[in-house]
Formats: sequence, structure tokens, C-alpha cells
Amino acid sequence: MALPREYTNQACSMVRALEIVGERWTLLIVRDAVFGVRRFSDFVEHLGIPRAVLTERLEFLIGEGVLARVPGPGKRSEYELTAKGRGLWPVVRALSAWGDEHYAPGGRRRVFVHAGCDGEVPQSGTCLRCGAEVTLAETVMTPGPGLTPPSPEEGQVSAVLARPRPLLQPVH
Amino acid sequence: MALPREYTNQACSMVRALEIVGERWTLLIVRDAVFGVRRFSDFVEHLGIPRAVLTERLEFLIGEGVLARVPGPGKRSEYELTAKGRGLWPVVRALSAWGDEHYAPGGRRRVFVHAGCDGEVPQSGTCLRCGAEVTLAETVMTPGPGLTPPSPEEGQVSAVLARPRPLLQPVH
Repeated sequence: MALPREYTNQACSMVRALEIVGERWTLLIVRDAVFGVRRFSDFVEHLGIPRAVLTERLEFLIGEGVLARVPGPGKRSEYELTAKGRGLWPVVRALSAWGDEHYAPGGRRRVFVHAGCDGEVPQSGTCLRCGAEVTLAETVMTPGPGLTPPSPEEGQVSAVLARPRPLLQPVH
Repeated sequence: MALPREYTNQACSMVRALEIVGERWTLLIVRDAVFGVRRFSDFVEHLGIPRAVLTERLEFLIGEGVLARVPGPGKRSEYELTAKGRGLWPVVRALSAWGDEHYAPGGRRRVFVHAGCDGEVPQSGTCLRCGAEVTLAETVMTPGPGLTPPSPEEGQVSAVLARPRPLLQPVH
């Protein structure tokens, strides 16, 4: 379900955007999809999201064109970000950066670098070393000083995502 | 109320951030504060938010250090963004830009320009004309092609915010 459309005075674009992504799980699903999570079971494992809620959210996001259902290995379906969905990365990135600044006493949990160049890619998306505008697929996520190595109980997805890896690269 | 802390697997900074701003009204309150809204009655008028919800949200955001209660004219209190609160602008900006791209058939509703220079300030915060990193206080919000002029019933705040004005400049 989207947010109720009850912002009667608020025809602005941000209100439209909040109707799509203003539900608490949605941006976490989008973030995980950028990190390479594509399978229903992997979202469940990594987010601890109730299955019924995930089903409903995935259907909603497919309907809005944020995710697409694509064939995976075997008969499994997978979920892939569309271009519209990838366009939410700056929102996820900005929220994470704010969280890192104010709620990460051990330092940043993840640091993003430009593949090949190794320059850091800050929130603006411009590589600090070479000045290029770095796309998602050219961005490598690396563990930052504040990332606690995940325990085995946290599952395989958390373990994979704690290692340096390009964004959008499938976890499996 | 913050989001329930039920993302058991999710110690990341974005989850912490969503606990603070993942409630549907919060980012709208922060946005309005950036636009210069400072009075309780103006938030009510502009957002159409129930008074009890606004009271609860403002108290929560003051407790988290996002807003500060400051003396206004007469005996009135006003609400002002702290530095931490102003740090949420990139989140608001990214959400609005995404909404403008996908849900604004008439074009962008608001365009941000560099005061004095008049260059456009995109999501990155770097002026497209002079290349400066533009602060909030140096940013002028102007009506874009998609902004429908507000009708008188929408109230005085909407009317003020439809005219070019610097961000953070008090509405009154």
C-alpha cells in the first residue's frame, strides 16, 4: 500500500515520491537491490522482513515501475531495479550519509569507491580522485571502519555484503 | 514515535536514519522548515497535518536534535532547523528530484538557483554556472514550469512559497 493520499495541500513532487517510497521497508528493499540482492528469500534473510509484507511491497514496486520481475536460475523469479528504481540511489545514499554522520560512533559502515580508479565516491557521485561522474555499476562498496563483521547467524547475504563488491552485482 | 526498532539484522546507518525520518510526515516538516516555515500554525496550514500529530513529531524531532525551539515574535515559539536538521536537505532534495522526474508531467515544480550568480543548483549542490558548492542560505527557490499557482484557499504560506525566495528565510 502506498501512503494514504491525504496531503491535500501538497501537490509537490516530494509528496508523490513519499507515496511510493515513504513506507518504512521500501527504501531498505531498494538499498538491498542496489547491493545486489535479487531473490525473495535473500530479502527475507537480510532484512528480516515478514514474507507477507515483502510480497505486498514487491508487487507494489513492480506496479510503480521501480522493480521488474525477471527470470532467474531454474524456475525462480528474481527482482531487478529498473532505471527508475536505480534513480532512487541518491535518496538511499543521502539517508545513509546522514545516518553515518550522526548515528555511527564507530565511523562509516560503508565506503564507496570508483572501480579501477579507487577514488572515493561521495554523496555527490563525483569521484574525489579523478572527477568523473560515477555510475552505480562503476561503484564498489567497501567496508568502512564502523562495519562490525557480521556473525554467522546473520546469514550468507550479510557475509557477502561485508566484502568489497561492485554495486548491482548479483549476490548469487 | 520513531519506527519500531525491529530491523534486527540491520545495524546500518540508513536504518538509524529511517528510525528518525522514516515516518511519513517527518521529511515534509523538514522540507517546510528549509522553505522557511517556523510556526506551528503555518505547518498546520501548509501541510494539512493534524495538530496532535504535529505536536508529537515536533517534540520527537527536538529530542533528536533535528529542530530547536526558539523564541519568536511576542510569546510565540518557533521551530528552527539545527545543523543536524539542515543535513537532511540532500535527502529531501533527492526525493523531490526523483518525484519531479517521474511524477511531474508539467515539469519541475521548483528550481533552485545560486543567489547572486543565478546559476542552477542541481541535486549535487554544485552551481552549474560558477561551480561553487552552494549552501542552503545561498540557494534561492524559484517556481518551476510544473508549479500550479496556488489558489487563495491554499493559504498564505503556499502563496509565499510560490514566489522566488531564499531557503531558510522565515515565511513571516
